[in-house]
Amino acid sequence: MIYGGIEAGGTKWVCATGTGPDDLRTSTTIPTTAPAETIDRAAEFFRGGEGLAGIGVGSFGPIDLDERSPRWGTITTTPKPGWAGTDLVGELAGKLDVPLAVDTDVNAAALGEHRWGAAVGLDTFCYITVGTGIGGGGMTGGKLMHGLLHPEFGHMRIPHDRVRDPFDGICPFHGDCFEGLASGEAVRARWGIPAERLTDPHAWELEAEYIALGLVNVICTLSPQRIIIGGGVMNEPSIFPLVRARTADLAGGYFDTPQLREGLDDYIVAPALGNRSGVLGALELARIATDGTAPS
Amino acid sequence: MIYGGIEAGGTKWVCATGTGPDDLRTSTTIPTTAPAETIDRAAEFFRGGEGLAGIGVGSFGPIDLDERSPRWGTITTTPKPGWAGTDLVGELAGKLDVPLAVDTDVNAAALGEHRWGAAVGLDTFCYITVGTGIGGGGMTGGKLMHGLLHPEFGHMRIPHDRVRDPFDGICPFHGDCFEGLASGEAVRARWGIPAERLTDPHAWELEAEYIALGLVNVICTLSPQRIIIGGGVMNEPSIFPLVRARTADLAGGYFDTPQLREGLDDYIVAPALGNRSGVLGALELARIATDGTAPS
Repeated sequence: MIYGGIEAGGTKWVCATGTGPDDLRTSTTIPTTAPAETIDRAAEFFRGGEGLAGIGVGSFGPIDLDERSPRWGTITTTPKPGWAGTDLVGELAGKLDVPLAVDTDVNAAALGEHRWGAAVGLDTFCYITVGTGIGGGGMTGGKLMHGLLHPEFGHMRIPHDRVRDPFDGICPFHGDCFEGLASGEAVRARWGIPAERLTDPHAWELEAEYIALGLVNVICTLSPQRIIIGGGVMNEPSIFPLVRARTADLAGGYFDTPQLREGLDDYIVAPALGNRSGVLGALELARIATDGTAPS
Repeated sequence: MIYGGIEAGGTKWVCATGTGPDDLRTSTTIPTTAPAETIDRAAEFFRGGEGLAGIGVGSFGPIDLDERSPRWGTITTTPKPGWAGTDLVGELAGKLDVPLAVDTDVNAAALGEHRWGAAVGLDTFCYITVGTGIGGGGMTGGKLMHGLLHPEFGHMRIPHDRVRDPFDGICPFHGDCFEGLASGEAVRARWGIPAERLTDPHAWELEAEYIALGLVNVICTLSPQRIIIGGGVMNEPSIFPLVRARTADLAGGYFDTPQLREGLDDYIVAPALGNRSGVLGALELARIATDGTAPS
């Protein structure tokens, strides 16, 4: 059985076919433009779904994931121009003659890491992306996290010391929420250059402070066995050591477990699948939806 | 089958026998003094477990809940004098001739509300207590929340405007974390009087601000279908309306769902079982451990 996967991001869509990391048969990257154009190009790549057992979609959001909802698979309140209200799954289904499965981009990435990467054998863990925006998902008790809607880690409120950082934040809904302060767009707006060109160590200490505050809140609510962090901002070489050290400081010795006391090198980690977690997880979404086997 | 339940709190232990809210046969309240004395009195109440199929314990924490751990059932880093390192389950097991089950006090309360109260039929929801301390637990995907340790909602970091509230917070580990700012002990330390005697509307607006910030972070990480809040601080008549209004403000229209737009009266609720959620949930913990039936 060959599957298709789409990592549907706000900047680009990555589409692939295959069965796993050692068997990716074809792949392509499509810039995210208007909904109709982007969806058309993805459908063309998959040639209507010919020869595929199913296609999984890991999408940016917020997206309605309630299968009983008339809006299942529809992008909801995104500030991304043109995309709010797009019936992503419906539009794809009209062009593809195969079963579709959908989840958030971060849940798809978590699923990929659970099957083949840094979360193999764990049942409660998080996948967080710090890229253009900030998102989070993962598994609790061996199941992908859902609920009323789906997790939106990026919109947590965290302490913001305006003396140290007078920047107001860029979230159109919340201003200085986690994403408003620490996403790639926030970095660009605060410093006037994109994260990949930012070299000031103080700027990276500030970034690590916000990420660590977000992680502490995730640890307090979910108690993950591991936290995987992807996304372009995490390509900065100094960021993982800074985040680990600051998270340990903020934990303050309260969490009585070796994982949170001894360096955190094995607790806060990069995705083992690199930037392929999302599209590989989308393949796995399709496999699960098609053959009915839940993650183990 | 008759079960025993212990709600083992930092101030008092509530012990009961029975099968549910309409069939509580005996109950007693024991002040939490030294560990040995408190445990002895609980064991005496249950007369060694005679006639009971099992006893469930919903305990204050942090507590080791990993059944593979040599410290399973041991209280770990609590600041409560004399209790850090207490092998709660081991000590009880030495005095009681019945199977024991243990979880956090808040997970036990969540389980009680799931079986008989405000969470019947939900699979992802939270139970939060704002009392002497602040704790949180609940279910995700139909299972009680566990993980590396267990949730510790009270130790999240939230924004703290020191101009509005110069109080440093009372958490011995983190100072002005959620519990450090908003627990009953924090209220007493900030205002010099206990919450039940606090009448200043500005003080309650500040309390609602902190609780709402905590709830927004819980919504962003867990996406619960409902949030149940118990604990002594929530007895103030104005607090639920204030918290609901401020949570809606902070959500800022981002969460596109009726539950989070329309008053939140049915989203942020008091426990339907009142102050019996914990001890009834402890009975249910015992029932599940004894007959092997998971929550439905």
